[in-house]
Amino acid sequence: MTNFLSLADVTNLDALIQSGLDAKANPFADQHLGKNKTIGLIFFNSSLRTRLSTQKAAQNLGMNVITLNVGAGQDSWGLEMEEGVIMNGDKAEHIREAAAVIGRYCDVIAIRAFAELKDRDKDYREQVMHQFAKYAGVPIVNLESATRHPLQSLADCITIQEAQLKSSLIPARPKVVLTWLPHFKPLPQAVANSFCEWMNVRANAGHVEFVVTHPEGYELAPEFVGNARVIYNQDEAFAGADFIYGKNWSSYTHYGQVLTQDPSWAVTMADLRLTNNGKFMHCLPVRRNLKVADEVLDSPQSLVIEQAANREWSAQAVLKEILKTM
Amino acid sequence: MTNFLSLADVTNLDALIQSGLDAKANPFADQHLGKNKTIGLIFFNSSLRTRLSTQKAAQNLGMNVITLNVGAGQDSWGLEMEEGVIMNGDKAEHIREAAAVIGRYCDVIAIRAFAELKDRDKDYREQVMHQFAKYAGVPIVNLESATRHPLQSLADCITIQEAQLKSSLIPARPKVVLTWLPHFKPLPQAVANSFCEWMNVRANAGHVEFVVTHPEGYELAPEFVGNARVIYNQDEAFAGADFIYGKNWSSYTHYGQVLTQDPSWAVTMADLRLTNNGKFMHCLPVRRNLKVADEVLDSPQSLVIEQAANREWSAQAVLKEILKTM
Amino acid sequence: MTNFLSLADVTNLDALIQSGLDAKANPFADQHLGKNKTIGLIFFNSSLRTRLSTQKAAQNLGMNVITLNVGAGQDSWGLEMEEGVIMNGDKAEHIREAAAVIGRYCDVIAIRAFAELKDRDKDYREQVMHQFAKYAGVPIVNLESATRHPLQSLADCITIQEAQLKSSLIPARPKVVLTWLPHFKPLPQAVANSFCEWMNVRANAGHVEFVVTHPEGYELAPEFVGNARVIYNQDEAFAGADFIYGKNWSSYTHYGQVLTQDPSWAVTMADLRLTNNGKFMHCLPVRRNLKVADEVLDSPQSLVIEQAANREWSAQAVLKEILKTM
Repeated sequence: MTNFLSLADVTNLDALIQSGLDAKANPFADQHLGKNKTIGLIFFNSSLRTRLSTQKAAQNLGMNVITLNVGAGQDSWGLEMEEGVIMNGDKAEHIREAAAVIGRYCDVIAIRAFAELKDRDKDYREQVMHQFAKYAGVPIVNLESATRHPLQSLADCITIQEAQLKSSLIPARPKVVLTWLPHFKPLPQAVANSFCEWMNVRANAGHVEFVVTHPEGYELAPEFVGNARVIYNQDEAFAGADFIYGKNWSSYTHYGQVLTQDPSWAVTMADLRLTNNGKFMHCLPVRRNLKVADEVLDSPQSLVIEQAANREWSAQAVLKEILKTM
Repeated sequence: MTNFLSLADVTNLDALIQSGLDAKANPFADQHLGKNKTIGLIFFNSSLRTRLSTQKAAQNLGMNVITLNVGAGQDSWGLEMEEGVIMNGDKAEHIREAAAVIGRYCDVIAIRAFAELKDRDKDYREQVMHQFAKYAGVPIVNLESATRHPLQSLADCITIQEAQLKSSLIPARPKVVLTWLPHFKPLPQAVANSFCEWMNVRANAGHVEFVVTHPEGYELAPEFVGNARVIYNQDEAFAGADFIYGKNWSSYTHYGQVLTQDPSWAVTMADLRLTNNGKFMHCLPVRRNLKVADEVLDSPQSLVIEQAANREWSAQAVLKEILKTM
Repeated sequence: MTNFLSLADVTNLDALIQSGLDAKANPFADQHLGKNKTIGLIFFNSSLRTRLSTQKAAQNLGMNVITLNVGAGQDSWGLEMEEGVIMNGDKAEHIREAAAVIGRYCDVIAIRAFAELKDRDKDYREQVMHQFAKYAGVPIVNLESATRHPLQSLADCITIQEAQLKSSLIPARPKVVLTWLPHFKPLPQAVANSFCEWMNVRANAGHVEFVVTHPEGYELAPEFVGNARVIYNQDEAFAGADFIYGKNWSSYTHYGQVLTQDPSWAVTMADLRLTNNGKFMHCLPVRRNLKVADEVLDSPQSLVIEQAANREWSAQAVLKEILKTM
């Protein structure tokens, strides 16, 4: 693997999931791979799980880690992404230089750069990731980009598979439901997009049945929702589900807008009782009692902590693949 | 030792002080203890000594270190500490998730979270430390909480003992005086509280005589001041003292208020001459010529730099105790 | 080498340049030198290349690295630099304590502190570097100070020598031209000063011919420009040049002011054609199409990425010299 920008960079998903589970069982087995190798973690946005889990995974593999917060008032300044412009604004450096230079100091560069939610075409062009990939000259890892969060999706796959290994009550081809949750702030579609992308592949391979449910107007981009079954009634979608994956996102069609905050879309135990003793998943952070009730997050059906813990192993599986090519 | 939240977590203070002195003499002797162990340093507030000395101590012990600044505009976002609330405000994540998740990536979590000085009951409940201890599932180290700064107090004990070992002029049971200093900003009581808590134990064991002096209205919380002798006249308190420990704090009774900035409470050489050639201590940072005169800080009687240097060894002694239980 | 504040700390420049080239060829050969040694990187200002390259160089040498951003809203608070003041303003700690304390935790301290461009005498006194050197008690490395950026200048020397080794078309005594570039913001003179200081020594040793070109009013301080030939006509200066070194700086005589933004001073391919197939250098960050045309930066004549890459090796050469004295 040379880059990890999206699922398209994964040649064998089953093996990658297994590699994550192996890393969890034996975190320090591959420490030689990262010796004298440095990963640069570049953050255009705040982070908790991603920052800590990627740093930890890299250290498990014996790598050195350098973190850099980018933007006004941060470790370093903002970067110009557009080509050919006269740089007379607030961006002091162009991505062409920044990426090339960081690529000379770091053996791998991992980048977080959220959607700005102002210009859909711009966000969906994935300019930051593509510019880094074009100019850095070293492998690039996506730590959540404008439209995707593949390390999260890989952790999600690991979490589902692990839950199946732990419980014989979960069927071999579980029903997985992605549900929209209410929120007052406009959030990116990246986690939901990515989860669709990965679950569609898992569904096509016969590993899951995948359903998406959300209010009218919250349809995700067609290239992500793919052949997933979309149901506009949450109760109907939840019936018989084995995994409920909650997430808020802002509208794709009315780009970046909050069309409703309908609290009936929040997940409660009453909702969970419609499922087949379904496990609850969420990428975190989650606003308690706004998006999901305390009783759900604190119930034995919640996998959210294990899911977050698995971020370490998804990052380690990906970094191991990249280090193996060096 | 499983947590280090306060003196109550210390079973053998004499041994812990000695462990700090041993670490100072031989910093890298226990490097095997921390191999493949990670400490997460979580800062809700700024730090210089604590940040650097704890990082250094952990590295001396062979640990990996991950730092995280929490709050708006920082590495990660603010955390909700209250249970059961509807999270529709400015806090994006609940401590229940944050602590549990960080506890999955880190073997030890160390946290700095100052008093807000708005609501005394809230500050004195020590919510942040207790919530982390409740939900993290791994040992918690206090890097200064709302009401205590135990790594500072341990460094203070090490510093006093070291000064005694260095000078035969200091008696076996020295007189230690904590004095309030003037300041225009309201500061927490944590360092003063903690120093009282630790000195009272040292006094009860016959190691020191302990006196506190401050203007009327600056009485510390009864549970911290304990049986210490309180004298409202600084000159009287200083008479025959072997150690003067200076610190400003805001009022506990008129909570968080600055009741006076009386400059006569600042420590000068004239004040020091009232003592038994007393050593001057302060946890730093110190505002020169506002709280303490240049002549005091730059005199041979000042221990402030050695005291700060000993922060490394107090952190190392504590982390060693924690690592030994793993 | 005990400090690296300026060229005056270098005893053998030829050997230091060669040491940088050796480190580039064999980055991990001296990893034993830094074992159990800690470097503290203290940033009063933003950084990208300096932060990453110094961190990387230190890790190549086996050192532990601790970074600290200083200032309001950063990791730690602002520092008072003036002696004897009553500290009743916004600075919570004096450099005397901060430097001494950091010096107890770190074996080497590296500091970035830009010119404020308000008070020329104050900037040119180099107070921050001198106070750290006075009070820290350990070696100090300049990561760009008010008037100098010696790690950049060393990287520049390495880059010129490397280019000569790579191409027989570059003469043994190349013509090197420092040219002022237009910019709308007032920038420090540090990089230009330092480049003059180092090139004058190279010129005196017969290694280069050195020319400076800029508009009237942009004369650098006499102690830096030295015996360099100053030409006010850029075209004339560029004639037959082997290396063009571009940089904006604000006025030294009208201190900190932007006297002109004349776009004809920006470097284009038409300008480069006046040279002897001259290589283009710039310390970065560079504002594309404001200071330098895309066509120049993206041409094979541009050395800017290699020059930035060489920051790692200049830092490593300097840190190696310092570690060898310990």
